[in-house]
Amino acid sequence: MVFMRFRPRIFSPSLFGPSKPRTPTLAASPPAAAAARRRIVSMASSTTTSEDALRRALAERQAAVDAQAETVRALKAAGAAAAKAEVDAAVEALKALKVEAGAAARRLQAAVGAGGGGAAREEMRQAVVNTLERKLFYIPSFKIYRGVAGLYDYGPPGCAVKANVLAFWRQHFVLEENMLEVDCPCVTPEIVLKASGHVEKFTDLMVKDEKTGTCYRADHLLKDHCKEKLEKDLTLSPEKAAELKHVLAVLDDLSADELGTKIKEYGIVAPDTKNPLSDPYPFNLMFQTSIGPTGLNVGYMRPETAQGIFVNFKDLYYYNGQKLPFAAAQIGQAFRNEISPRQGLLRVREFTLAEIEHFVDPEDKSHPKFVDVADLEFLMFPRELQLSGESAKLVKLGEAVSKGTVNNETLGYFIGRVYLFLTRLGIDKNRLRFRQHLPNEMAHYAADCWDAEIECSYGWIECVGIADRSAYDLRAHSDKSGVPLVAHEKFSKPREVEKLVIVPSKKDLGLAFKGNQKMVVEALEAMSEKEAMDMKAALESKGETNFQVCTLGKDVVITKKMVSISMEKKLEHQRVFTPSVIEPSFGIGRIIYCLFEHSFYTRTSKSEEEQLNVFRFPPIVAPIKCTVFPLVKNQEFDDAAKVIDKALTTAGISHIIDTTAISIGRRYARTDEIGVPFAVTVDSATSVTIRERDSKEQIRVGIDEVASVVKQLTDGQSTWADVSFKYPSHIGPQGDQE
Amino acid sequence: MVFMRFRPRIFSPSLFGPSKPRTPTLAASPPAAAAARRRIVSMASSTTTSEDALRRALAERQAAVDAQAETVRALKAAGAAAAKAEVDAAVEALKALKVEAGAAARRLQAAVGAGGGGAAREEMRQAVVNTLERKLFYIPSFKIYRGVAGLYDYGPPGCAVKANVLAFWRQHFVLEENMLEVDCPCVTPEIVLKASGHVEKFTDLMVKDEKTGTCYRADHLLKDHCKEKLEKDLTLSPEKAAELKHVLAVLDDLSADELGTKIKEYGIVAPDTKNPLSDPYPFNLMFQTSIGPTGLNVGYMRPETAQGIFVNFKDLYYYNGQKLPFAAAQIGQAFRNEISPRQGLLRVREFTLAEIEHFVDPEDKSHPKFVDVADLEFLMFPRELQLSGESAKLVKLGEAVSKGTVNNETLGYFIGRVYLFLTRLGIDKNRLRFRQHLPNEMAHYAADCWDAEIECSYGWIECVGIADRSAYDLRAHSDKSGVPLVAHEKFSKPREVEKLVIVPSKKDLGLAFKGNQKMVVEALEAMSEKEAMDMKAALESKGETNFQVCTLGKDVVITKKMVSISMEKKLEHQRVFTPSVIEPSFGIGRIIYCLFEHSFYTRTSKSEEEQLNVFRFPPIVAPIKCTVFPLVKNQEFDDAAKVIDKALTTAGISHIIDTTAISIGRRYARTDEIGVPFAVTVDSATSVTIRERDSKEQIRVGIDEVASVVKQLTDGQSTWADVSFKYPSHIGPQGDQE
Repeated sequence: MVFMRFRPRIFSPSLFGPSKPRTPTLAASPPAAAAARRRIVSMASSTTTSEDALRRALAERQAAVDAQAETVRALKAAGAAAAKAEVDAAVEALKALKVEAGAAARRLQAAVGAGGGGAAREEMRQAVVNTLERKLFYIPSFKIYRGVAGLYDYGPPGCAVKANVLAFWRQHFVLEENMLEVDCPCVTPEIVLKASGHVEKFTDLMVKDEKTGTCYRADHLLKDHCKEKLEKDLTLSPEKAAELKHVLAVLDDLSADELGTKIKEYGIVAPDTKNPLSDPYPFNLMFQTSIGPTGLNVGYMRPETAQGIFVNFKDLYYYNGQKLPFAAAQIGQAFRNEISPRQGLLRVREFTLAEIEHFVDPEDKSHPKFVDVADLEFLMFPRELQLSGESAKLVKLGEAVSKGTVNNETLGYFIGRVYLFLTRLGIDKNRLRFRQHLPNEMAHYAADCWDAEIECSYGWIECVGIADRSAYDLRAHSDKSGVPLVAHEKFSKPREVEKLVIVPSKKDLGLAFKGNQKMVVEALEAMSEKEAMDMKAALESKGETNFQVCTLGKDVVITKKMVSISMEKKLEHQRVFTPSVIEPSFGIGRIIYCLFEHSFYTRTSKSEEEQLNVFRFPPIVAPIKCTVFPLVKNQEFDDAAKVIDKALTTAGISHIIDTTAISIGRRYARTDEIGVPFAVTVDSATSVTIRERDSKEQIRVGIDEVASVVKQLTDGQSTWADVSFKYPSHIGPQGDQE
Repeated sequence: MVFMRFRPRIFSPSLFGPSKPRTPTLAASPPAAAAARRRIVSMASSTTTSEDALRRALAERQAAVDAQAETVRALKAAGAAAAKAEVDAAVEALKALKVEAGAAARRLQAAVGAGGGGAAREEMRQAVVNTLERKLFYIPSFKIYRGVAGLYDYGPPGCAVKANVLAFWRQHFVLEENMLEVDCPCVTPEIVLKASGHVEKFTDLMVKDEKTGTCYRADHLLKDHCKEKLEKDLTLSPEKAAELKHVLAVLDDLSADELGTKIKEYGIVAPDTKNPLSDPYPFNLMFQTSIGPTGLNVGYMRPETAQGIFVNFKDLYYYNGQKLPFAAAQIGQAFRNEISPRQGLLRVREFTLAEIEHFVDPEDKSHPKFVDVADLEFLMFPRELQLSGESAKLVKLGEAVSKGTVNNETLGYFIGRVYLFLTRLGIDKNRLRFRQHLPNEMAHYAADCWDAEIECSYGWIECVGIADRSAYDLRAHSDKSGVPLVAHEKFSKPREVEKLVIVPSKKDLGLAFKGNQKMVVEALEAMSEKEAMDMKAALESKGETNFQVCTLGKDVVITKKMVSISMEKKLEHQRVFTPSVIEPSFGIGRIIYCLFEHSFYTRTSKSEEEQLNVFRFPPIVAPIKCTVFPLVKNQEFDDAAKVIDKALTTAGISHIIDTTAISIGRRYARTDEIGVPFAVTVDSATSVTIRERDSKEQIRVGIDEVASVVKQLTDGQSTWADVSFKYPSHIGPQGDQE
């Protein structure tokens, strides 16, 4: 009899959760095998071999320097006995060796250090983040009160981008797939999150500064220590470097004890005060509160939106005419009380999730529309490639499913739809990969999991998780609530089935086991068909048998009269089953941040004096679709601008009128910096120019046509090429001046 | 020196807050005047006079019955001495009097009871709510765990309605008015809500069952007691009835002590157990939590979205080019931990707010677009009408502003825009009124407040508050944060102004007042111009003067050398001031609920056997814009349905295909019940019929035109009359069968 090892759902799409389950996986799996697997993992994403060679080379050069320095010292100590020429030559040789050692150190530094590609990344990120903050895409929340770590506001353009991304998500998923959208509260009673496992397991390991009480994430401190050593300590032996890398690779799987041991071993102290640290202990990441006035009903701010869908399964199933498959979706706020938020906008304490739960018959995971996405080809990073140290490869989705790399068509269909969603938003397809979870990353009940990872200046970031979670979640809520969350398949004609029937004799079991009776009964009833048949045979031949009751932690003796086991034939009119759920889960804030990085570029101003910032947002994402500039201040142009303003408003196109008295070039630059795709310049009372942001090309269009042209362009009915073909191009005196 | 009496912002647009400030207003204003004012208020909304007459009539009849009964008893007691005829006559007279008394009791019951219009309202509400719950517009949250009071989910159609209402709100306000939208976290640090006054004052008074600990809202218990007495106790004297009504009228203003006294006086006990109750005490309605792992940083789930805007004022003002006026807007969740939520969907613990903060120069509250709304005429309920016991009247908005009924043009403009927003959503203009706050309802700093109230089965419900809050909120955050939240007006040429200059001599004050020096200095610096000039005159004539320092709670003696006071002429280049804010604040859930009631009607089925439910949602609100029905199951019709499906999806029109094998009439009825405005029936391979929900008229349209016709209708570009004129009408065999 196997007892299910508990791994809560949170940890399967780990992307938005910082945490891995705190099960001692190191101890649970054979240590050597685990170490081997992890070494491979760590190799997959680094250049261990060449780095090893560089470390060795540096060590050799350093040894040579030391030896030569000894020689020089000996010669000098000999005083006049040594010929001056000999000393000079030895010093020259020492210098040369030092130069060589220096070069080796720099090569190693470049290979491992944050000073290599890291600096460029950091610089690029600073440029993006500066623009984002200056233009109020983001604002650190409650700034006038010095803010709160991990909380950010979206300012006007950020808010518009977010609304556009969510509107497109609704169109692309909810509308096109006829999903059932729900909207549940954030405040959630404890029982729901006990059933889901969050109350018990949604934790990170924390250590405290023993004197000041300041809290740190234990794994962060260990990670920082290892990284810093690896990047800055050039005297590190290759063996020690390998050890630190191994620690980094298994970091997510370390138990509290293992983490604590490492922290002690490496002498890690509180970063700010150098005080000693407490032992690591779990800290639950949910914001706790109390519902109602008594203080007795514990509640939490939901850590994800999925549970609201699961608890509504029964109603939604009936709403859908008791038919499978169907999908429900929810967009909403989720909350995680991070111990010490880092990575700026990627790891925050409150964020918007968009989640889909697609309920499907576990015996039929085909998808009628899979054919629509089967020909898509994009970067996939299946388990095998990760384990063999290779990189992600271009794979056709249809092949990935037919070869079994992706578990089933429905999962494959969602991977394809997620790919289309992200690339249509403007995510660079060369910096997007679908990475399959390794076996140790997945919950035991999960059939298969893939993360859409987007590369940005922080590395590859998990932005969407797509998991086949089998029947786990619905079962958990069925068990806790006592309400069966199941589906029915009516047979066209009744089917004869053989069913295992186990009838414990409570009287005899009660006499034998007294207070333990209930646990023995449950264990008997939970036997698989094979276990039961084996027991039946044993009881019939020997009259009694040993039986392991895990909940008692021991074997008991079962006699023949204690239980009756038989296979009975029954006519069944329907099949009752718990549906499987396939869950695509989107971290909207992370997607938007990566989109900002992928959309950002700079170009030199016309005067070549400045670098100008541009966001190349596609029109559906752009916070403002067009700007209207009267070329110079006069009544005629202002009136024309008003006419255009009204037409744009009626057409529902977000726009701004910029009448500031600065050069048109400056106004274009200002508009490019918030990613406005089209700029309308009013330079006559009857016609205007429309400029496209990235090509800087302009066309001339009649005033009464402006709104419809911009609408076509922003709705995606026409491309810039289409309208360029239709309308005369413009290269006039008010042309591009940036 | 006047100290500002604190009245936090929450209480001015009281609509979404259950609470009134806990300031003892009864004691603060002259009792007689207050009582008089309140009596008038209570008269305005009841029929006190006729009810009084009925109570008196009943009491007289009852007295007559009692007297006659006494007569009968006396006659009977006399035994044979009384003639049988005399006794019979007396008994007959008693019967007649009893009949009269019974009739009087019924008349009174009808006038006061919930049994009158109340029953019809209740029935209507039940019909709406049943349909809403059955069709999953709403679902009690966490239903499988027996739910949580005051928390509701929006199911699929409810969610779509909500998304449509919010999209229209964005179009109508944010886009058309070029507002700056922001999106701030729900988790809010304590300091922000201390500044706003919520930590101290956002409370309701609570009593506890002294044995079980069950909590009740004190005012609810008192209200229930008074209402029940008034409705059911027909023996109530007119004087007692007047007293109870007075209590109801002043209920919101009662202090904890006053409430406690009344509860004791009336012998009110816990409703469920009849146990005695504790004294009332304030319970803060915010959900409290803790930010970060230390447990030391208190946070709350925001009770409104406005504060997120105020704390960002400075950045938003710069973003707007340092120009006033401008408006910022926010849509988001807000949280209130109600003591015992009632009124179903109207009073909930988590809800969506949409708030606008329009920042304006306090010296110029004109609005350039006021002319666009000046001619609107709708029900207004200004203060005077309420105080004189009249009802709301149709008023032209332009007149209300020009006569000064509405304080200023900007406030008037928003009232007009709110009217347009609500009526375009489908709120019945005859059940919508704008009610002005009475002086005792407003915060002392507010210039004027109007609530958009919508009548539904619960009475007139406050759904939008539109308040001119002056500079209160920005000042509160300036004071708390130390960051000036101000605007600047640059003068075209410098202006000469006379300014009061008060220079305390800290040395002399320090010698005189030691530890109290700071408070004296602050009090001196805070003097008004008149106070300072009076002091200057006194010091010059007498050399010293008494000066009241409120923070010390006593007078001190100020001598001439302690302070220098003068008026100095200065050249000023700009004016620095705190903007006023005009705040329209929308309770989205309440608006949606009222919309459901206003949109709901029933009609008899064709067979006259059933009442069919219909929601007459306008297309912009309808959760699904159209349904597609293949008339009978065949390949040809299914293929046509698929073509239409694809075209509708591409056009972004939410729709469902219903291929169930039930009669077309049933399918129409099902679609009417969730308010789908248009039903497309596929009855040929080339053309289809489109049916309009309310008129049940049908037109015939080619398959390739369906999507564009439905799009025009749902976008508001065409009306049903337009398309009926253009396309042939259809009265065919598949016509209406409901």
